[in-house]
Amino acid sequence: MPVRVAVDALGGDRGPLEIVSGARDAASAELTPVIFGPAELDTLGLEHVVTDGVIEMEDKPADAVRAKPDASLVRAARAVGDGAADVVVSAGNTGAMLAAGLLHIRRLPGVHRPGIAVVIPSVKGPLVLIDGGANADARPEHLVQFAHMGTLFSHDVLGVATPSVGLLSIGEEAEKGNQLTREAHEALIEADVRFVGNVEGRKLLEGGVDVLVCDGFTGNVALKTLEGTIATLLTSLREEIASTMTGKLGGLLIRPATRRLRTKLDPDTYGGAYLLGLRGLMVIAHGSSSSQAIANAIRLGAAGVEHGIVAALAERLPARTQPQT
Amino acid sequence: MPVRVAVDALGGDRGPLEIVSGARDAASAELTPVIFGPAELDTLGLEHVVTDGVIEMEDKPADAVRAKPDASLVRAARAVGDGAADVVVSAGNTGAMLAAGLLHIRRLPGVHRPGIAVVIPSVKGPLVLIDGGANADARPEHLVQFAHMGTLFSHDVLGVATPSVGLLSIGEEAEKGNQLTREAHEALIEADVRFVGNVEGRKLLEGGVDVLVCDGFTGNVALKTLEGTIATLLTSLREEIASTMTGKLGGLLIRPATRRLRTKLDPDTYGGAYLLGLRGLMVIAHGSSSSQAIANAIRLGAAGVEHGIVAALAERLPARTQPQT
Repeated sequence: MPVRVAVDALGGDRGPLEIVSGARDAASAELTPVIFGPAELDTLGLEHVVTDGVIEMEDKPADAVRAKPDASLVRAARAVGDGAADVVVSAGNTGAMLAAGLLHIRRLPGVHRPGIAVVIPSVKGPLVLIDGGANADARPEHLVQFAHMGTLFSHDVLGVATPSVGLLSIGEEAEKGNQLTREAHEALIEADVRFVGNVEGRKLLEGGVDVLVCDGFTGNVALKTLEGTIATLLTSLREEIASTMTGKLGGLLIRPATRRLRTKLDPDTYGGAYLLGLRGLMVIAHGSSSSQAIANAIRLGAAGVEHGIVAALAERLPARTQPQT
Repeated sequence: MPVRVAVDALGGDRGPLEIVSGARDAASAELTPVIFGPAELDTLGLEHVVTDGVIEMEDKPADAVRAKPDASLVRAARAVGDGAADVVVSAGNTGAMLAAGLLHIRRLPGVHRPGIAVVIPSVKGPLVLIDGGANADARPEHLVQFAHMGTLFSHDVLGVATPSVGLLSIGEEAEKGNQLTREAHEALIEADVRFVGNVEGRKLLEGGVDVLVCDGFTGNVALKTLEGTIATLLTSLREEIASTMTGKLGGLLIRPATRRLRTKLDPDTYGGAYLLGLRGLMVIAHGSSSSQAIANAIRLGAAGVEHGIVAALAERLPARTQPQT
């Protein structure tokens, strides 16, 4: 049986055709994309569930998900809740994905809060940052649960034998940080994960830890700083090089090198992030995703299904964490 | 009268000679460095205050400052509190600088918390991030006060006519963020600053706002992510280029361009950050500062004195902010 991936055709900044085209590229004997979008959409021959309405980026997530039950994003999420699809992929409103997931897929037993697990292609290998932005405010026990989720993800999907877990903070010493990280640090020492201590923001691209735990606000600020810095630096470098003739010639000669580096560090390599902690799998793609990024996000979703990540979390997570107080 | 700069010779990762050498380079008819360090130190002819003891990077700041009253960092801070020097510069323990400042220089009337103001050399011009790490936990009224401090700094020292103020958050919409930023957003709308709304982490290097306000935890994570990403990316690019013969030749040709870019984005350009909100001025330099960075930090300190930043804060800050509740 091929994996069925519910694809929200609306919500991406580049329009539905970019998304449908990515879905077509990802389709294979093992992977059936199902397009959720309006009747008039050309789905290039892919299976089509006709939907009515769209969740906008500016919409208030929880309100919009309730007010627009037939919008493409909501219907696609519901398909996973109903068992009609194995995983949902959307480049739309992240908050609405979370709200639709909580409403129509629901939390796994024992899970306090779902978390967004983002794979960063660091220099020393893939690093799972969790939470990338699902919960702007978090408590220490949430961070401990993110550590468990990230460990399972790193082990089961990325194949790391005993993943190391770091806590994103402002200094390596245990007492460095804010109230949340100081309490989480203590709790992580007691937790059944391979906790290696606090880690600073410089490690995001450098790597050196398998799982990086943080609240969703800090994680999102750090991710956007990382992505923005890479983009701005490479653009500035190109402009600086193009400002002289010698530079231009040099630029031609190093183009293969910069292209290799871009590919290595490109966030589109993974195409999206998992929303973990629900009874079904959701993949959140960048709003600006190209068709290639969407294809990768769809393949990422299928890989998560094949690795049985939800079943693994359901089986191993409650036993490893404290009940909610 | 030349500006007298109290320089803590200990604390820098590269040893006291690097710091003394930077101080000697910064010395001029308008600037007198005074070296605070042990008797055996060669101060290259600079004025020398003999101190006893050192605050280590691992020391608990408040305890260490009380337990080691004659340590170089503490004595240098006290010199500003006593009026023996106009500004203190240290590449040592940031927390100890804050503790020594609170104890021996003391807060300006009306100031809730001092904040670290870091100048980021963004592509669109200098951007003042405040707080860069003085207070890991903050309340909305602290962020409003940081907005006022940053505005004064941007105006008086950097010469920006009417500085724009952004709030570092995870989306541009007012409701995007955590509890702190949502409340601070409302308060900043009411405040007498040119508030332009929420700003994402990608703007740190790209620029586009004059003052970027945040709590010290978020600010420090973002700054270290920024610096680490620039360093890792440029190193990776060099390695990628050096991996082929063509790349090596291209690398030689673009070297002037990469050098210009490095100079433009180098955090050592400013050499240090101001700790604002005290009755005297403190400059915090990077632990890894080169002698050149130390010289720049010392000049930065002298510039702050010449611009009368403390007097300006004393005069204009209390009138512009709410009393502490």
